[in-house]
Amino acid sequence: MGEMVVSESLLYAAVAVAAVVVLGNALAVSSASESSKVKIWPMPASVSYGNAHLYLATDFGLSSNSESLILKEAFDGMLAAIKLDHVIDANSSAFNRSSLLQGLHIVVSSPNEQLQYGTDESYKLMVPSPEKPGYAHLEAKTVYGALHGLQTFSQLCYFSITRRVLEVRMSPWTVIDQPRFPYRGLLIDTSRHYLPLTVIKKVIDSMSYAKLNVLHWHIVDTQSFPLEIRSYPKLWNGAYSSSERYSAADAAEVVRHAVIFFFCLYSNDNLLFRALQFFLICLLKSIHSYAQKRGINVLAEIDVPGHALSWGVGYPSLWPSKDCQQPLDVSNEFTFKVVDGILSDFSKIFNFKFVHLGGDEVDTTCWTTTPRISNWLKRHRMNESQAYQYFVLRAQNIALSHGYEIVNWEETFNNFGSKLSRKTVVHNWLGGGVAQRVVESGLRCIVSNQDKWYLDHLDTPWQEFYINEPLTNITNSKQQKLVLGGEVCMWGETIDGSDIEQTIWPRAAAAAERLWTPYDKLAKNPREVTGRLAHFRCLLNQRGIDAAPLAGSGRAAPLDPGSCYEQ
Amino acid sequence: MGEMVVSESLLYAAVAVAAVVVLGNALAVSSASESSKVKIWPMPASVSYGNAHLYLATDFGLSSNSESLILKEAFDGMLAAIKLDHVIDANSSAFNRSSLLQGLHIVVSSPNEQLQYGTDESYKLMVPSPEKPGYAHLEAKTVYGALHGLQTFSQLCYFSITRRVLEVRMSPWTVIDQPRFPYRGLLIDTSRHYLPLTVIKKVIDSMSYAKLNVLHWHIVDTQSFPLEIRSYPKLWNGAYSSSERYSAADAAEVVRHAVIFFFCLYSNDNLLFRALQFFLICLLKSIHSYAQKRGINVLAEIDVPGHALSWGVGYPSLWPSKDCQQPLDVSNEFTFKVVDGILSDFSKIFNFKFVHLGGDEVDTTCWTTTPRISNWLKRHRMNESQAYQYFVLRAQNIALSHGYEIVNWEETFNNFGSKLSRKTVVHNWLGGGVAQRVVESGLRCIVSNQDKWYLDHLDTPWQEFYINEPLTNITNSKQQKLVLGGEVCMWGETIDGSDIEQTIWPRAAAAAERLWTPYDKLAKNPREVTGRLAHFRCLLNQRGIDAAPLAGSGRAAPLDPGSCYEQ
Repeated sequence: MGEMVVSESLLYAAVAVAAVVVLGNALAVSSASESSKVKIWPMPASVSYGNAHLYLATDFGLSSNSESLILKEAFDGMLAAIKLDHVIDANSSAFNRSSLLQGLHIVVSSPNEQLQYGTDESYKLMVPSPEKPGYAHLEAKTVYGALHGLQTFSQLCYFSITRRVLEVRMSPWTVIDQPRFPYRGLLIDTSRHYLPLTVIKKVIDSMSYAKLNVLHWHIVDTQSFPLEIRSYPKLWNGAYSSSERYSAADAAEVVRHAVIFFFCLYSNDNLLFRALQFFLICLLKSIHSYAQKRGINVLAEIDVPGHALSWGVGYPSLWPSKDCQQPLDVSNEFTFKVVDGILSDFSKIFNFKFVHLGGDEVDTTCWTTTPRISNWLKRHRMNESQAYQYFVLRAQNIALSHGYEIVNWEETFNNFGSKLSRKTVVHNWLGGGVAQRVVESGLRCIVSNQDKWYLDHLDTPWQEFYINEPLTNITNSKQQKLVLGGEVCMWGETIDGSDIEQTIWPRAAAAAERLWTPYDKLAKNPREVTGRLAHFRCLLNQRGIDAAPLAGSGRAAPLDPGSCYEQ
Repeated sequence: MGEMVVSESLLYAAVAVAAVVVLGNALAVSSASESSKVKIWPMPASVSYGNAHLYLATDFGLSSNSESLILKEAFDGMLAAIKLDHVIDANSSAFNRSSLLQGLHIVVSSPNEQLQYGTDESYKLMVPSPEKPGYAHLEAKTVYGALHGLQTFSQLCYFSITRRVLEVRMSPWTVIDQPRFPYRGLLIDTSRHYLPLTVIKKVIDSMSYAKLNVLHWHIVDTQSFPLEIRSYPKLWNGAYSSSERYSAADAAEVVRHAVIFFFCLYSNDNLLFRALQFFLICLLKSIHSYAQKRGINVLAEIDVPGHALSWGVGYPSLWPSKDCQQPLDVSNEFTFKVVDGILSDFSKIFNFKFVHLGGDEVDTTCWTTTPRISNWLKRHRMNESQAYQYFVLRAQNIALSHGYEIVNWEETFNNFGSKLSRKTVVHNWLGGGVAQRVVESGLRCIVSNQDKWYLDHLDTPWQEFYINEPLTNITNSKQQKLVLGGEVCMWGETIDGSDIEQTIWPRAAAAAERLWTPYDKLAKNPREVTGRLAHFRCLLNQRGIDAAPLAGSGRAAPLDPGSCYEQ
């Protein structure tokens, strides 16, 4: 998969060079300093542009070889986003025909709409199309690559307030693009504060603007258990309140493409069922999940055996004792039955290749101080750290049995890395240097070192997010490929629905460019990209996303009156 | 108008008493302490409730004597708002028929959809309808009263996560309601920071949830001039940038009901024109403005002669000199031509009865230190304060000539109150006690004393907003009627699109109850309403409005993990 992308990229690069030659007046952008006129965030792998103005026809439309409803909806959403609620009432027929764009022609080569880790995300965008005059042209292997192309196209478009029309400046454009890392994540935490569904959906919208592609949903923790688990229906007794909960159906609607019915239907084969099948296919096409429709995978987490106190509100036997309530009781078979039940339920909702099993910050005091458990440890000849390992590995096996590969926080690697399943991805958080050791051991890694990529650290400015390099000191190309990418973490202790957006943005965007843009095109000094990032944060504001000013620390308010672009 | 509301209210009150008697198990709510189970914000004038559960049928629909598209859209919006993005998939036919609500029946007695100062906002809501089983019943004189009734109904509805259905608890309900003050405002400031249209529209949405009814749009100030004025097209050269602007069409779309075409049509009377007329009426019905559709009037402001430096970016002759740039040049006839042009343009967009002419914080130093102007003052035998009065009164006359009544900040009253047009409403801001003096002088007043109702004062907590009483020391009932209401002010120096919502909410809601709810039903101690206000702020969060926690000062982040309802 990685190889294919590379060769594709070479092919595209050759086309780009050709395009530059053919178009004559186009300028290729090859370094950060040359690109100050290009306002795309994150910066694409390859961009060239000219100096002409084009205008979008009033009935600017989609034409495509694909019938994809995901694509159609994304195109409509993109058009709404670029209008920014302005009144567009220019008479576009009064414009010079050669300066009018009639629509966007999209060619998607694969009809497969499965979204998964490693799905091809590359695309190529040409404005105008050299082959189809009056149209822009977007090509992608998958619909999800096309979605990224639509996001890029949306960033080429401006509302002209003097002409009251949408315009593309600096045409012709050729953008050839693909991400540097296949895993570009954002963590949200719905245990420390419940996040309303409306808020989660808006976070997903905003992620797609920055080409992030994994929502890491840290669903449950010590403080609350908001999700319905049908196998163990008392688990969500650990929610803060009855209205601070997600039903399993809610989660499914946020997350995944409903395919269940297909299986029922394919097992029958008469005419009535074929008719029903057709009807249901139409129906199912319209209920693609919210995240999938935006190219966002959802990584679900249950953090075990620590960070799980809230499980025991509904099932107190999961606690070591009423007075000592975590970690989960390692000595109790029921504990692993519940883990199995949760992961079984997860597998019906969360169809990402990975599930996150946590494993961090396990304080085993309650195991040794609770006589029942300390006796069990003695009987099984384990000390506490062996019991911790036993718990994590047993949970891994349960996840594997449900078809998942596993992500675990780095303490599991730091304590017993060689024992972890080879299907483990180690999630770094404690600090730098961990990824290097993980990939040297042959395991895969996701980078989230807290000193740089924790969004709840309000004193970490966007510049620090920008310069955090996941491949630091990793030079071997095979080892480099084991770094799947990185993730910024929006822990929820001091954020809720009221301030999550400006705590995430614009700092998450700085990390998003680090994870998307080829290393050589990244700015060596973040100062070089300040203007472009400010432009992106103003765009987020215009689209209704509450991204904070760049000046100051995380979620700082503007200090003084002034233009958005200078704050 | 005021009289009519009162008698209507008495009639309604009689019906309410009757309803309580008939329904038997219903409890009338007569004081704040009895109302802890009622979670409606702001608290209605009269509420009674019972103890039954009702469920909304899957196809819960609108039936009405009115064809109003405003009503239909508001009903659809209300349904979307109460779903809160949850999956509603209960089979409502499985519910007991007597506990099912099939729809809401709305009776609006006046077909007049004009929204204006003083428009009747009363309504009566009964769930279920005593006359139409299976339906809820909403009655109002105007569509705008019905909109308030829909908001109240939306607050009676809960999503039941266990049954996955919408429910009304504590039925039967009888709510008889009308506002205490006809003017319940919120100021936004688009000069210190440009607010994207998306943000303004979301602010309007949120206002309607709290039954506020005037958006005071402080459009222009020293720092920037974002609005297109067609009569003087260089004025918006004073915008921060080309994309930090509103076209006149944008403003119209935010604000007003398009009625222009009607006038053209009514002057013709043949068949073709009647057909066209029908078509256009349908068209026009669909382009009711955003604010009007939500029952929100828009009060436009140009603040003169101070706070107007940005005007001179496009027309430098409006400045006393290049080095001394405000107040506007009082000696220049062009200044008043521009004021006239702006108000002429305003009258095509802003059809509220009032326009705001500012008049505050005028430092006349530039008039006395600029030789041209000081000579003019001498020639006209005016000192600076007389010139300030001259400017304000001349601007008032221009506004009157365009059919407006006037709002001016209180300095105009404090300095030359007896000279002001009798059509002036004095806008208090400096402190308490002003309203009393204004109404004693026979003028009308809006209360916004900065020590209590300025939202940019982050150290003013919601409790202070709640206890600020506009009628303090005003006991004469005729004088009381001269207090039109009050307004909370969201000045823009340190807020922009990224943090405006949580700086406004929940504190503006505290003021909204003060302005809506009958004096006797207001809590004497704000502590009594903490739980209900927390409930409302969580509702705002669930609807995607970033209302901050109640604990702490303005726009404080949550301090610790926990339930929304306790923060």
